[in-house]
Amino acid sequence: MTAVLFHFPFDPGSRSARLALGEARIAVEETGVRPWEADCPVRDLNPSGMPPVLQTAHQGRPLTLCEANAIMGWVEDQQKTPLLMPADAGERAEVRRLTTWFDRRFTDEVNAVLLHERMEKPLLRLGPPEAQGLREGRAALREHLVMLEGLLGERDWLAGRRMSQADLVAAAHVSVLDYFGEVAWKSYPLLKTWYMRLKSRPCFRPLLADRFQGLAPAPHYADLDF
Amino acid sequence: MTAVLFHFPFDPGSRSARLALGEARIAVEETGVRPWEADCPVRDLNPSGMPPVLQTAHQGRPLTLCEANAIMGWVEDQQKTPLLMPADAGERAEVRRLTTWFDRRFTDEVNAVLLHERMEKPLLRLGPPEAQGLREGRAALREHLVMLEGLLGERDWLAGRRMSQADLVAAAHVSVLDYFGEVAWKSYPLLKTWYMRLKSRPCFRPLLADRFQGLAPAPHYADLDF
Repeated sequence: MTAVLFHFPFDPGSRSARLALGEARIAVEETGVRPWEADCPVRDLNPSGMPPVLQTAHQGRPLTLCEANAIMGWVEDQQKTPLLMPADAGERAEVRRLTTWFDRRFTDEVNAVLLHERMEKPLLRLGPPEAQGLREGRAALREHLVMLEGLLGERDWLAGRRMSQADLVAAAHVSVLDYFGEVAWKSYPLLKTWYMRLKSRPCFRPLLADRFQGLAPAPHYADLDF
Repeated sequence: MTAVLFHFPFDPGSRSARLALGEARIAVEETGVRPWEADCPVRDLNPSGMPPVLQTAHQGRPLTLCEANAIMGWVEDQQKTPLLMPADAGERAEVRRLTTWFDRRFTDEVNAVLLHERMEKPLLRLGPPEAQGLREGRAALREHLVMLEGLLGERDWLAGRRMSQADLVAAAHVSVLDYFGEVAWKSYPLLKTWYMRLKSRPCFRPLLADRFQGLAPAPHYADLDF
């Protein structure tokens, strides 16, 4: 049985799940869904109605994993040696702090404002973006990127000495905004180097091939050396 | 060195951390904080500025854990045998799905509306609660409680056959609303039995002794048999 991942290509949670599965080299059939449509198959699989959902098998029995958190946790549980969770207690705490940060703060302050204007409005035909939403969302994004730049001044990766779930979750969020040309890379040199390292990994390739209806990505979106 | 937990007694995340530490019998000194005040010590410890934060030591070195997710994860990492995460892959996925549900859906739909009216407004002196907020928050709460009642019709505990982080997180949220008399227990008999079992555990005792400024708890709040 081939595992099937139901995902929305521009949903940061879906991208987090794809990156973790890709890093672990777990082959899945990617099925894009549109969660706002009444016949979206995810509605019958996840009580929240939202992607990502992974249908797979575990020890010979079917297993349905709902939400990025469950998929990333399961991916890590499958590993004989830690892959995306560091062994060090302090770094593990940072991974968990940062994933919470993206799940709540970044989602509420940036995505709910800026992605609402740039992505949800065209998808749901809610009219053109509004200047105030764009301005507020971009101001919030700058604060978050400054924070990430600061962390990378102290560490190789966001949570410490090795790449972790925190990097994948952060890159998932940043990559969606980058598609829409919202990341002013020249202001964040450390973040740019970090993102280039991630972008060059095989797990990132499918994300760089995603295309949003009627809107080409920012020119550098799929360039590994930008 | 005694571990110190900075918490706000009516913050569901703080309560989740206290319950997990209590279940694991990890002794901590509980220091109540008021996160909205300028001199709150958590502001210097957690970039989000919010409790819970645990200051402890790990293998002889100081360790600061920010956010309930990091504290619960660390508690579990300390165990020789699983305590609050089931071994079964399907149940682990359910724990992670449900903690995501409470972190996002329950927080946004119930807490941000109903606890805003009942708790934040008096704390921040924002005036009396408004009827519309109360009505919407209570309608959302009913839907979430019906969902939990449904899960308990199929399972002993929320995520499966054993008590897990999902039960503690759910009980943390429900217990705050119960203080304010917002849970109509007679409509949810399975949830009531589940909550009585949790409430009787030693980890719950400190929560039942919490008191909110100027407001006594609902009469049954601290009764183990209500």
